Amino acid sequence: MPRPSVREQLVEAAVECFHTTGFNGTGIQDIARTAGVPKGSVYNHFASKEALAAEVMDRYAVSRRLDMLRDGSLAPAPRLRAHFRYLAEDLARFDYRRGCLFGNFGTELANQSTALRDDVDARLTSWTTAVTAVLTEARTAGALTTPLPPERLGPFLVDAWEGAVLRAKVTRDRAPLDGFFTVLDTLLT
Amino acid sequence: MPRPSVREQLVEAAVECFHTTGFNGTGIQDIARTAGVPKGSVYNHFASKEALAAEVMDRYAVSRRLDMLRDGSLAPAPRLRAHFRYLAEDLARFDYRRGCLFGNFGTELANQSTALRDDVDARLTSWTTAVTAVLTEARTAGALTTPLPPERLGPFLVDAWEGAVLRAKVTRDRAPLDGFFTVLDTLLT
Repeated sequence: MPRPSVREQLVEAAVECFHTTGFNGTGIQDIARTAGVPKGSVYNHFASKEALAAEVMDRYAVSRRLDMLRDGSLAPAPRLRAHFRYLAEDLARFDYRRGCLFGNFGTELANQSTALRDDVDARLTSWTTAVTAVLTEARTAGALTTPLPPERLGPFLVDAWEGAVLRAKVTRDRAPLDGFFTVLDTLLT
Repeated sequence: MPRPSVREQLVEAAVECFHTTGFNGTGIQDIARTAGVPKGSVYNHFASKEALAAEVMDRYAVSRRLDMLRDGSLAPAPRLRAHFRYLAEDLARFDYRRGCLFGNFGTELANQSTALRDDVDARLTSWTTAVTAVLTEARTAGALTTPLPPERLGPFLVDAWEGAVLRAKVTRDRAPLDGFFTVLDTLLT
């Protein structure tokens, strides 16, 4: 049995590499070097770079903290703001260089790997469903200023967030995220 | 002197390849094969893949039709709608597989090529400036329903569009773009 810590080191290194240089811009050698393990050990743990990418998506999905969207101890409007603020802080920690792995893989791999595209699609759908549920609660609580139905607004906000994150990756500052929050504030009371 | 038509074939092939499989997922050989020319001829025309990518960005930027945003024969609100509808039709022609080259290169190359990142940044900034100018006209004409200042709304809309295009590349349908238009319609009278 390989030591669990090597596997863990590899996943953490892959999170870093895939985020920074993308899937095709990252070689197995880069991941091994970042993890500080021999290249050969990557294939002791993962059948392929794609399999490693799927594991990285799992790890990344957990870090998105969708559970925050279900935290009934906060009213829906502050809960939604807190969720996006949490995501913004995570981006700031990496100087806006990482972007969102879902968006990164979505743009880079949509035509290259059906498995990874389906995976990104499912992750974004889960997230959208959770955001829409909070907006539905907000509507019931009278905390939405817009007549747009939550099932329209939820997908729009998730996509708008992905666009702002993409833009922040290019500008390397938080201005695009601030723009998102400004609009979000006009939608919520 | 190389024949101009070979150069043109190469640029058109590169537009197709970079859009579909990304920068790092596209080899010089792929571009040559798509163009139907020998691999060696690529370097007769372009110093590097990056130089070819810059040319492809030029070509793509022209196809974005920013001139539509300056067409004074249309009132600002229908002009803005017409611009985004034009972009949506362009995406539909390729079954939503291409996404936006600015967004694609932005996510894929922001940490890999300072030159291409700066280029994407400049293109998105020009576009944002043009959209904001139309929104300023719309504000003056009383055609905005939101109190948000155009200089806030313009960047937000461009980023939200990029996010919707990214999502459409993953879902392979126009639902994310429809979501964008639904919200746009609530902002314009």
